Amino acid sequence: MSLAELTTRLRDFAKARDWEQFHTPKNLAMALSGEAGELLSLFQWLTPEQAMRAMSDPDLAASIEDEIADVFIYLTRLADVLDVDLVKVANAKVDRNETRFPPKPEGA
Amino acid sequence: MSLAELTTRLRDFAKARDWEQFHTPKNLAMALSGEAGELLSLFQWLTPEQAMRAMSDPDLAASIEDEIADVFIYLTRLADVLDVDLVKVANAKVDRNETRFPPKPEGA
Amino acid sequence: MSLAELTTRLRDFAKARDWEQFHTPKNLAMALSGEAGELLSLFQWLTPEQAMRAMSDPDLAASIEDEIADVFIYLTRLADVLDVDLVKVANAKVDRNETRFPPKPEGA
Amino acid sequence: MSLAELTTRLRDFAKARDWEQFHTPKNLAMALSGEAGELLSLFQWLTPEQAMRAMSDPDLAASIEDEIADVFIYLTRLADVLDVDLVKVANAKVDRNETRFPPKPEGA
Repeated sequence: MSLAELTTRLRDFAKARDWEQFHTPKNLAMALSGEAGELLSLFQWLTPEQAMRAMSDPDLAASIEDEIADVFIYLTRLADVLDVDLVKVANAKVDRNETRFPPKPEGA
Repeated sequence: MSLAELTTRLRDFAKARDWEQFHTPKNLAMALSGEAGELLSLFQWLTPEQAMRAMSDPDLAASIEDEIADVFIYLTRLADVLDVDLVKVANAKVDRNETRFPPKPEGA
Repeated sequence: MSLAELTTRLRDFAKARDWEQFHTPKNLAMALSGEAGELLSLFQWLTPEQAMRAMSDPDLAASIEDEIADVFIYLTRLADVLDVDLVKVANAKVDRNETRFPPKPEGA
Repeated sequence: MSLAELTTRLRDFAKARDWEQFHTPKNLAMALSGEAGELLSLFQWLTPEQAMRAMSDPDLAASIEDEIADVFIYLTRLADVLDVDLVKVANAKVDRNETRFPPKPEGA
């Protein structure tokens, strides 16, 4: 499945449940931030080393995938209702970041 | 550009700046949540109606696209360092949501 | 109970459980943001009008009080480990805001 | 200044600027979460050790105090508009946590 197909699937999912009324930009930005907070909470008491190995714990890995999925779902919905192309705007931002943060010179 | 190509571009960008040391799962989850908070702040004082029309204001639209880009960039990086396939886990979550939230019956 | 007494109670609570090792500034900032996200999620699908009446629903009111408590607990802990006086820094910020945002003139 | 006095000051500040219309529970929960995200961003690239020493860097300390102030200001405003007593609900939550998380036995 592509990102475009996921976008359409999520749009149809909301429509079939009459949830479009709730999926306003303001509400979706809140839902996105709330899910990012839940993802954060999975890492908050871990040392950096424990966080690195998080995916080797099956239960924790499942929780992380679940929260990442929720963040991505709301981000995709928000981008859809605002008519924003996620990959395009991210790519344009990396273009700007190339200028703002020149790469480290070889041998530095 | 595809999501796979964006993932690779972001990985190369971090590597060229020696930023891989900062891009731990814990730090990236923080950066993601911080950017989601910045996106949120663009909508916080708007009425639902103003938020709906946000993209018709060129300056606000540019800020929204910029923050959405940042959220997506950190989400893509986090998924990459954790070896999570964004579209796959989102799709699996929608499968589960289909069961949890059956669609509204026709005519209801 | 005063804020000073709450601060001491929370410090003793962490110490008695050997949790001081987890209560680093970085981890507490994460916990604070995660709890702010949970509070946010209680309001995300409500209309502005429903959100205004939230405290008249006993179950929702209990959830809101619970999340506000968690946010305040982590904020108090974070301020304690950083040796920041919450009321003092907030008051100093309002002083600065008085200058940045002059009050609306009478009759305007 | 006490927390009660800060609450009154913030209420008067909003009233004098005709900002009560913006200070709905939903909007204040968003502002709180957004500021928590900004606080988070100050710690995101620091190692745990660097984060521990954050207050010894005067510029970083000023930024941290500023963001903690913003979080506390919005939390105080939110509690005020919802008629929630911050210290009381936090204290009640610690009462419940005493039961959920018994202290570590001496010598364990």
